[in-house]
Amino acid sequence: MEHVTFPPLNRVAICGGTHGNEMSGVYMVREMQKQKEDQAGSVSITTIMSNPRAVDACRRYIDTDLNRCFTDALLSAPITDSTPYELRRARELNDQLGPKGSEGAVDLLLDLHNTTANMGLCLIFYSIDWVTLHIYKYIQSKMTTPVEAIQLDISISKAYSLESVGKHGFALEVGPQPNGVVRADIFNMVKEAVDLTKEWLQLFNSGETFEEGEVEAYVPVKTVDYPRDPVTNEITASIHPQLQDNDFKLLQPGDPTFQSFSGETMRHEGEAFYPFFVNECAYYEKKIAFNLGKKITLALPSISVKKD
Amino acid sequence: MEHVTFPPLNRVAICGGTHGNEMSGVYMVREMQKQKEDQAGSVSITTIMSNPRAVDACRRYIDTDLNRCFTDALLSAPITDSTPYELRRARELNDQLGPKGSEGAVDLLLDLHNTTANMGLCLIFYSIDWVTLHIYKYIQSKMTTPVEAIQLDISISKAYSLESVGKHGFALEVGPQPNGVVRADIFNMVKEAVDLTKEWLQLFNSGETFEEGEVEAYVPVKTVDYPRDPVTNEITASIHPQLQDNDFKLLQPGDPTFQSFSGETMRHEGEAFYPFFVNECAYYEKKIAFNLGKKITLALPSISVKKD
Repeated sequence: MEHVTFPPLNRVAICGGTHGNEMSGVYMVREMQKQKEDQAGSVSITTIMSNPRAVDACRRYIDTDLNRCFTDALLSAPITDSTPYELRRARELNDQLGPKGSEGAVDLLLDLHNTTANMGLCLIFYSIDWVTLHIYKYIQSKMTTPVEAIQLDISISKAYSLESVGKHGFALEVGPQPNGVVRADIFNMVKEAVDLTKEWLQLFNSGETFEEGEVEAYVPVKTVDYPRDPVTNEITASIHPQLQDNDFKLLQPGDPTFQSFSGETMRHEGEAFYPFFVNECAYYEKKIAFNLGKKITLALPSISVKKD
Repeated sequence: MEHVTFPPLNRVAICGGTHGNEMSGVYMVREMQKQKEDQAGSVSITTIMSNPRAVDACRRYIDTDLNRCFTDALLSAPITDSTPYELRRARELNDQLGPKGSEGAVDLLLDLHNTTANMGLCLIFYSIDWVTLHIYKYIQSKMTTPVEAIQLDISISKAYSLESVGKHGFALEVGPQPNGVVRADIFNMVKEAVDLTKEWLQLFNSGETFEEGEVEAYVPVKTVDYPRDPVTNEITASIHPQLQDNDFKLLQPGDPTFQSFSGETMRHEGEAFYPFFVNECAYYEKKIAFNLGKKITLALPSISVKKD
């Protein structure tokens, strides 16, 4: 593959509390602000508490999910008295860190999330971006715990989450951690990934070439809801013990998926897929018990900074 | 020890959703209501969704913690327009299942809870009650997973939680499970304990003698808060990885307790104690990072039903 160059990546934003009850990012951002960590060699760092009102309330959001507010359509819709808090806040964040799709946007936006699913450390990003993919490859090569990636096949104008505001960007989704709880093991993984990202950016800016290679990622194909009572709409089954905590392990036709509260086992039908976001707390209301995806291999070109 | 007899235990209440985001009890009660499980041999069963408004909102409580509302003082305080929802609801529950301390109260009240702490299945009860302790011994002898117990040394008039409304009663505290999430492994443990309790009651009512013996329980001695910033009051450390998930394992002087967000380790000082409720989500606001207790051994007399 042909070598690719990018302009220097000098301006990075590290965001936490986009969901106010996902505590790794909340405490990571607070700690960085306390330590006045606003520079790492060639990289200037902006730390952001994305949804301070939701953080104060220790809730995912106040009016609506902030991390679904960053589409071009929502960012340009008229503001009225009844506009939800999070849509207003998305506008502020886009002004400060973007505007999305513009030259003024930060070079890299890193948004810190937690999940109750056993997903370890997982990068989530839109489309194919060599910078993000090389950072993923670097983190994966350095960490001793599993590092996975999910690629969302959504155009940038329809990309709904905060990291889409940066020129490059990804969400770090780390779990399992209950909402409202901070676990040291999860915090340490997030800190290590943030430190490795800063290290990579400095190496990149200093002229290092990152060699071509391959990475694997998961691409969502569909979602599966919990079995529900047709009248009350209440769920009638939990994730089966054999699927629980087994994110990214191939789910074959016939494998158990749910265990009803009266004790029956339900099984996967159709094609084999990889499950993830298995039993994520916030997705009950979105009617998602788990995602199913396929695994792809991406070939990366070598990259380096563009010389003047 | 001298043999002890008790009147038949015919009326049992099984309660869930006392905390609206602890899902094992919510789904257990819904399932029992759906299956119309209102009789088990000699035992009539009342199933109660204790805090339906909090369950609908998937929050611990609406105005105040329902499970702190059952002291004699609160149950007899005048109701005004500004009385919190949960204090009103406590009054309703006391009317339905009590009144606390009266002949009309249910014979046994079982209240189903979850914790984010790794406490397995844990019974919590007030003072020394041979019926509850024999049920504990029975459950422990039948289950393959660890079963522990915590004894709160609080007089019945000051006992603040729902199970104190029954003539006998205990809370089942089961974890680890995130708030707002239902896990099949945890649900299955709760179901097994509920079924064993029903089985024990039927054996007891049928005249079986439960032999004398011993059980161990933990008695709370003190609580430890998270290290906090003296100005902002925000926590500055998480539970140390060596303490996290190690509920009921003796904490010795010098053992790590916290890891600060800047990386320092804090250690336990003073006497050795047993930790529990380690990193329970709902206790952040109560300023409890973990409880410390001592282990006691209780000698039980043989018991059986009082013959007419």
